[in-house]
Amino acid sequence: MHEAEPLGIIAAGGRVPVQVARAAAKSGRACFVVGLEGLADRGIEAFPHAFVKWGQIGRVHDLLQQHGIRELVLIGAVDRRPDFGAIGVDLFALRLMPKIVKALTGGDDSVLVNLIGLFEEHGYAIVGAHEVDPDLVAEPGPVAGPAPNVPDDDARTAMEAAGAIGRLDIGQGAVALDRRVVALEAAEGTDAMLRRVGELRANGRLRWRGRKGVLAKRAKPQQDLRVDMPAIGPRTVDAAAEAGLAGIVIEAGRVMIAERDETVKRADATGTFILALGNGGS
Amino acid sequence: MHEAEPLGIIAAGGRVPVQVARAAAKSGRACFVVGLEGLADRGIEAFPHAFVKWGQIGRVHDLLQQHGIRELVLIGAVDRRPDFGAIGVDLFALRLMPKIVKALTGGDDSVLVNLIGLFEEHGYAIVGAHEVDPDLVAEPGPVAGPAPNVPDDDARTAMEAAGAIGRLDIGQGAVALDRRVVALEAAEGTDAMLRRVGELRANGRLRWRGRKGVLAKRAKPQQDLRVDMPAIGPRTVDAAAEAGLAGIVIEAGRVMIAERDETVKRADATGTFILALGNGGS
Repeated sequence: MHEAEPLGIIAAGGRVPVQVARAAAKSGRACFVVGLEGLADRGIEAFPHAFVKWGQIGRVHDLLQQHGIRELVLIGAVDRRPDFGAIGVDLFALRLMPKIVKALTGGDDSVLVNLIGLFEEHGYAIVGAHEVDPDLVAEPGPVAGPAPNVPDDDARTAMEAAGAIGRLDIGQGAVALDRRVVALEAAEGTDAMLRRVGELRANGRLRWRGRKGVLAKRAKPQQDLRVDMPAIGPRTVDAAAEAGLAGIVIEAGRVMIAERDETVKRADATGTFILALGNGGS
Repeated sequence: MHEAEPLGIIAAGGRVPVQVARAAAKSGRACFVVGLEGLADRGIEAFPHAFVKWGQIGRVHDLLQQHGIRELVLIGAVDRRPDFGAIGVDLFALRLMPKIVKALTGGDDSVLVNLIGLFEEHGYAIVGAHEVDPDLVAEPGPVAGPAPNVPDDDARTAMEAAGAIGRLDIGQGAVALDRRVVALEAAEGTDAMLRRVGELRANGRLRWRGRKGVLAKRAKPQQDLRVDMPAIGPRTVDAAAEAGLAGIVIEAGRVMIAERDETVKRADATGTFILALGNGGS
């Protein structure tokens, strides 16, 4: 990394961009945050910043040039595709329009993944948020909540299933219970999958007592972790607990723990373990 | 098969056992139907038959012996595990009780799969319902509804995904749309998965116009097709149509079409294609 230069942060939604800016500042590195209007958290205002609309790529380029930025983090949640009526296309963007439209509408990939190419073509290096703030990911071992049973067969089974659907580029999550995979995540997302598990228990299709079973979440092998990392957060913990699961297992170093303090707090409060597994399943 | 001897049919729920008895009769083979009380359709009364409770294995054995039966079909839906308060255990069953309890409660396998061993140990040969009534499965090619686009990328994508989760012994169904897998079936079952796809469309997480996308259903490689064949039926067609999918693709010879006449009628009425694919995807 070019540590001497300020770090550029393109901030979409949620608290994570603020956390990354804070981590940069703490490590003594200056940063400049470009917040996407309507998405970025107001917390970025504590740092040198500007707000832009989706289509103001030219303005983003100018701002980054003015601040001597060559290294960029693209981070934050994009819950919805931009409203094309309000993206505020500038002249620079107009020339790039075909590419931008493709980036913003292309398939199911993260919008940010599609933007990488645009920035790299203009000479920026994209770095992962977790490279700036290593606290965003977990070291192998227990992360929060009660001590998990290790080795846990459900954890292994769920991780294996999540790996299989990841290799097919389908999804990142799976739930196993009594060594059986009971739910696989595709387009519905992790929270919806966890609600389904709770419903299957409520209607008697799945039966267990107390807390049992594991949600596994891991990155797809081909996923660009610089801008598109799977994440868990406080809501994931609550959803797993409500479904009656015993815990959550994530891939060490490759799954983001958003709002870590709050996530750990929820895990402790609801008695839900979070365990990070290394490559060897350790 | 021992065609000269009468065929025994152990009938659980639904219309399929009646259809199998009819097919046997049509082929000139006598049959004797043992209906499980509370599950078997009254339609079996058109054939030589008796009703038994789950626990009356001794009586089943006697009935089969009396009718000189050596070949058995175990067929029909088992929506729920037996109520142990009302299984009517006889003396013969009492000796076998540990095995029976294991058979009726064992894991998530089909109850019928677990019963195979019990019958085989007593000298019966188990044959598949589709061997008696080949109309229960499909030849490769269009089965019903409008002409599908073949080769259909969604069909291929969904079949591949269903194959992958089948190899992991997780499930038998998948939905693909625009060459992307949007839903995978695990414990929730096919109908629930299809409802989910409809909901994802209704809430805007998936977007398409008209009818598009495919449900694939196929057998797991290790599935015992004699007694545990994946099935589609009229309800599957209606659920696929309600979800907005264009059609259903099944594995030729390895997926049962329950109530075929009604299934074809629903496919034609709702404009939903049903296509059977052979091993080569032909």
